[in-house]
This record gives sequence, structure tokens and C-alpha cells, in this order.
Amino acid sequence: MQQIYLDNSSTTRVCQEAADAVLKTMTENFGNPSSLHALGFAAERALINSREQVAAALSAKPEEITFTSGGTESNNLAVFGAAEARRKRGNRIVTTAIEHPSVLEPMHQLEKQGFEVVYLQPDSTGHIAPQQLFDAVNKETILVSMMAVNNEVGSILPIDDARAAIDRAKAPALLHVDAVQAFGKLNLRPGRRSVDLMTVSSHKIHGPKGVGVLFVRKGVHIAAHTFGGGQEKDLRPGTEAMPAICGFGAACAALPNVEEERAAIAELNTYLRAQLSKLPEVTVNSSEDALPYVLNLSAGQVKAQTMLNFLSEHGVYVSSGSACAKGARSHVLTALNLPRERIDSALRVSFCRYNTKADCDAFLEVLCEGLKTLQQAG
Amino acid sequence: MQQIYLDNSSTTRVCQEAADAVLKTMTENFGNPSSLHALGFAAERALINSREQVAAALSAKPEEITFTSGGTESNNLAVFGAAEARRKRGNRIVTTAIEHPSVLEPMHQLEKQGFEVVYLQPDSTGHIAPQQLFDAVNKETILVSMMAVNNEVGSILPIDDARAAIDRAKAPALLHVDAVQAFGKLNLRPGRRSVDLMTVSSHKIHGPKGVGVLFVRKGVHIAAHTFGGGQEKDLRPGTEAMPAICGFGAACAALPNVEEERAAIAELNTYLRAQLSKLPEVTVNSSEDALPYVLNLSAGQVKAQTMLNFLSEHGVYVSSGSACAKGARSHVLTALNLPRERIDSALRVSFCRYNTKADCDAFLEVLCEGLKTLQQAG
Repeated sequence: MQQIYLDNSSTTRVCQEAADAVLKTMTENFGNPSSLHALGFAAERALINSREQVAAALSAKPEEITFTSGGTESNNLAVFGAAEARRKRGNRIVTTAIEHPSVLEPMHQLEKQGFEVVYLQPDSTGHIAPQQLFDAVNKETILVSMMAVNNEVGSILPIDDARAAIDRAKAPALLHVDAVQAFGKLNLRPGRRSVDLMTVSSHKIHGPKGVGVLFVRKGVHIAAHTFGGGQEKDLRPGTEAMPAICGFGAACAALPNVEEERAAIAELNTYLRAQLSKLPEVTVNSSEDALPYVLNLSAGQVKAQTMLNFLSEHGVYVSSGSACAKGARSHVLTALNLPRERIDSALRVSFCRYNTKADCDAFLEVLCEGLKTLQQAG
Repeated sequence: MQQIYLDNSSTTRVCQEAADAVLKTMTENFGNPSSLHALGFAAERALINSREQVAAALSAKPEEITFTSGGTESNNLAVFGAAEARRKRGNRIVTTAIEHPSVLEPMHQLEKQGFEVVYLQPDSTGHIAPQQLFDAVNKETILVSMMAVNNEVGSILPIDDARAAIDRAKAPALLHVDAVQAFGKLNLRPGRRSVDLMTVSSHKIHGPKGVGVLFVRKGVHIAAHTFGGGQEKDLRPGTEAMPAICGFGAACAALPNVEEERAAIAELNTYLRAQLSKLPEVTVNSSEDALPYVLNLSAGQVKAQTMLNFLSEHGVYVSSGSACAKGARSHVLTALNLPRERIDSALRVSFCRYNTKADCDAFLEVLCEGLKTLQQAG
């Protein structure tokens, strides 16, 4: 059976370069980077090399890279770490209603602790207007946490305006950007754009699951959230996850030119949109200016889960909302205030560099068949 | 050059079974277990299988197994999670002075929050007497956290007495056991012994680094320490580290019979002790009843780091104290109240199932040469 994987915002296939690095780190260079003998030193060199590879992909300094277990831990560390470090300077935090649960849930915890958290509401295509940031950020604001790209509809959020809003308000705020869906797809350069904290994850860019990074801009200090043996400059202790870290480094080094890849993906996206526009039952939920890697659409009156099953049975893999929601109604599409039937029938197609027009055609063919079969059935 | 690896308490070489599982999870079965399509379901089955493999190695139920990023995270989750869940029922915590930093540092954080933490002091061979537990645990005690085996000297701690002390005091305490050094080497059976929380780690048993488990006994509830998309029953969210998790499962399934392996290691230990007893400059710091996998010794007047370098240059890898201490003076040997020169010259030999008598001989040969060369030099 065909295997058409169009669920790359959920996770990606590990590239050969990363798989090779993981394997080597398990069986040859298997030392503990903290061990004071030749095998330990070799592991430490591999760790340094991986840190440099991730730093290069972010145009960052190696010392600004802290390895974590993934995007969720990076987001928790950023939100709790910033709030703890700045709690004496203010009580207000600004975020959006369409963040990932690994930002929203820590925010709910901080509310229980007495912080005031403002959740900016998006428009119907997942955009946050710059003015919303300027209105929300005040002198009491100690943290602004906003994703670079929304994971469900691909909308690009105004990071530079968040920085400008902090500066204009003279707020004692750190700026955290969850860039899990943007990394490798936009030129992020967090240092140059005065982003203080940035979350990225390995398994969205063809690296292994189980490793991520929190970029912490030089000179910025946040509190640790776990405590132990001093690794990662005491910010994130624990024996380093060397196989995954080296795989992540290799995946970063293997990233194609960001602009060229995005242009190629944009062609796929344009092609798919053109074909979908011929289907009267389909509404595209992602705006034209969304990141082209993500295309959210609602298909007729067919429940997303029913269509997902039909597509899957024919070897086509997409998602409804994010993988993390696991079938629950999307908080993002709810925040977009879409009609319930559009939410309940929403599918997310998400591309990677291995996808082709033939993959789009395969998806379209099964989708049309599904619409025919399932709408009749319903 | 020879490569004699006798630093297995720091980390181990990944076994073939585990490496194969990791590779397969990266390149074939690379789906996200939360994805609702065939690739996601296949990943979910692999996750279930790995959970069953780890559970079997602990004689536990699969639902008692929570995957984390490693021993440090498991210890943090256990200590913070238990303290948070039980803070209304008491204020006292009992632990020992020779725990791993990933238990001790969270304890220091809890002290800052107002908890009273009692650190039991070991004798000169790293033992804690049952009576110390009975004296320390009272009705205000909400957590007892004690390692099963000390990582630096191999002493076995009285877990069952910790349970008895809690029961006798009718304390509202959870019992947490850091079993990182004991897993695969002692029959732990935490459920049968009424251990509530137990930490184990993959990379000490020939699995990959970057994954561990917190066993949470059925019916026991602790607070989460990170927050997000609901994975691991909301206790430890984040996309599952599938390559490492499947590697850990495979490593558990590949564990030899615990008693038989320990008997084989005990032979190596006895042999090495016998040879060391012929060297007047050497004092063995591990007691006769220590876990045979660990043998701590002090060698003459030679600083440990100097001897480590000499051994490493000759292809023999051991450690001074734990890898996590990275050359700092061992808090464990300090707590044992050993003379400073014995602490400063302490080496740890730690075995795994791949070691042989020939490895002991190679170590002894280079050690003797080192003592001759370095003591003269000093």
C-alpha cells in the first residue's frame, strides 16, 4: 500500500544523517560527557559539536543553547524560569489563546500562584495584531510568551512587535518564543531580534524525538526547574541524552537552505490550494500568508476522525488539529471562532522536504473518494 | 590500544538489541503515538510494548510506569511531586546525606520552601542503620527518599526498614527509592515491597541515554512537575521520546537473570579484591557486603585525577567518585568521614556483564605501573 505522510507538524521521519549520528553515539562514542577519561572526553567533544550545530542553525552562540528533553520541557523551563526570575519586578504575563498546551498549562499554574495572565485572542485566521501587544504589555509585565508560527493553521505571529511593545512600555519582561513549528522554516535569528528565550524541537526537523533546546540569550538569567548534577550550566541537569542530542545536531547540519526549501514547499501549498478550490465542500482555514508548511482545511460535513480513518486506510496520513490534542476539540480552532461544523471537520496537511506533488494528488484523490463515500453514508 | 571499560556506574555501552530498537523507531516506525492514523497507532503499540518490557523488569504493572527523560527528572518528579501532593499532611522529609544530587538539590529547594529535611548520616562504609530510620520518621513525615544502592561505594540501603518505619510511625509518607544503581542488579519488586515511587534509568543497563522511568505504585498520586499535552497520564507530558523509550524497553528485555549475573560479577569483584589486597598502597573503601558491581578504592598518595589520566592513557577507564561530580570532591566520601587523602585518591571500578577477569588484570597492571611511576614523580 502507498504511504503518503503529510503529518509533518506532528512529527517527522528521522533523516539518515541524524540516524547515523544516533547509532554512532550508542555503540562507539558511548561515554558520559562528565567522565574524566578518554571516552568521556570524546563524548564531551561530540556534545560540543552538537551544540555548535544547533547554534549555527539559530545563528546563535553555542553557550546560548541549553539541551532539554523536547519542546514541552523547553516551554515549561522558559515560562516557569522567567516567572520565577522576575517575580519581584511585576505580576503580569502576556501570551495568546492559541499557544501549545506546554505554554498554556504552565500559565494556568502561574495563575494559581497569583500571576495575572493575559491571553490575546486571535482573529479568524489565527493572527494576533501588533496593536494587541502594545495594548497588553505594560510596566508590570515580566514575560511575553508567543509562538512564532501556530501549529494548527500556520499563522505567523508578530514577534518583532512583541519586542517593540516590551521596549515601548519599558517593561521588565523577557520575551519567549515557542518556535517549534518555525524552526528550519523561517530565519529565526533570535539574538539579532532580541528574543530572550526560544524553544525548538528536534523531531519536527527530521531529528529524533526526545530532545529539544531552549535558547537563552547571552546575559539573560532564568531560574532552573529541575535540579541535580550541574549539567547544562545547572539550568537543566541530568546525564546528557547523547544519542538524541547528536542526532539533533546532525539534523540541524542537514537542514537545507531555509528560503529555498520554503519556496519549494510554497509551490506544493499553492498547488494543493488550487486543487482544493475546485471542491465546493472544502473550506481552507489557513490564510494565504500562513507558513506554507501547514494547510488546515474543513471537508464537508464529515467528522475529522471519520475522514482521518478513511485516509489512513488508504495510506494517507494527515491530522485533525495537533497530535497532542488526540481527538479532543481543538482549542486553537475554537479560539478562531470558526463555526462548529468547520472545527469538527478540520484536517491539517503538513509538509516536509520529502513531499511531492504526487503526495498532494494522492491526498486529493482519497479525499474526494472519502467525501463521496462518507457524505453518502452520513 | 586496549579499551578496558570499568566505568559502568557512570554509563554503559548500548546493547545491540537496544540499538536495533532505536534505529527502527527512527526510520520505520517514526510516527507520533498521539497521531490518529496507522503510523500513529503503530507508534502507540511500540510505546505499549516498551512500557510492558520495563514493567516486567520491575515486576510492576504497565500503568505504574511513567517515562521521563532520565534518572534526574524521575528524582525531581518524585521529590517535588510527593512534597506538593502531601504538603497539607505534614512538613517533614527524611533522606540521606549520600543521595544523588538530583535528590539532594530538590531537597534544598524544598528547605527554601519551608520543609524540614532530615539528612541521615552514613557510617564509614556508606550504610544507614534501620534504627536511624525508625528514629527519624515521625507522624509529620510526608516523604522518605532513599537510594537502594549508593553509586560511589555500592552500599545497599535498608529500603524495607524505611517502609517499616513509615508504617510504625503511622506517617502520611510516601516512600521514594532512587534505584538507578540497583536496577537490573537486585530484584527490586517495588510493588511487593510497598515502595510508592522508584526511579530507574536506561543508560545504566545498556539502554540509551535520555530516558528513565518513575514507577508510581497503583493508587499513589503525586503532583506533576511539567505541564502540557497530556502524555503519560498528564504526569509527564511531551511527545514521547520514542527511540530512547523503545531502546530502554529492549534493554530491559535483554537483561540477564539478575541473580546469575550478580553471581558472575561477584566473582570478578572477589578476584579484584584478592589482587588488590596484595598491594599495600591500596585501601578498599567498599564494604564486603556492598553490591559487587561497584568497588571503590584509594590508591596511595596519588590524586585520583592524576591516576585517572594515567589509566586513561593506557586505555583503562574508571572514575573518581561519580561522573556527575566532574572532579569536585565527593560529597559521599566526605559524608563517610574518610581521611582526606583517601578521598582525594579514591577510584571507582564499576562492572557490567561484558567485563572479564582479563579486564581486572589489565586494570591491576596499569594501576601498579601508575603507583610506581606517579608516586616516584610526586
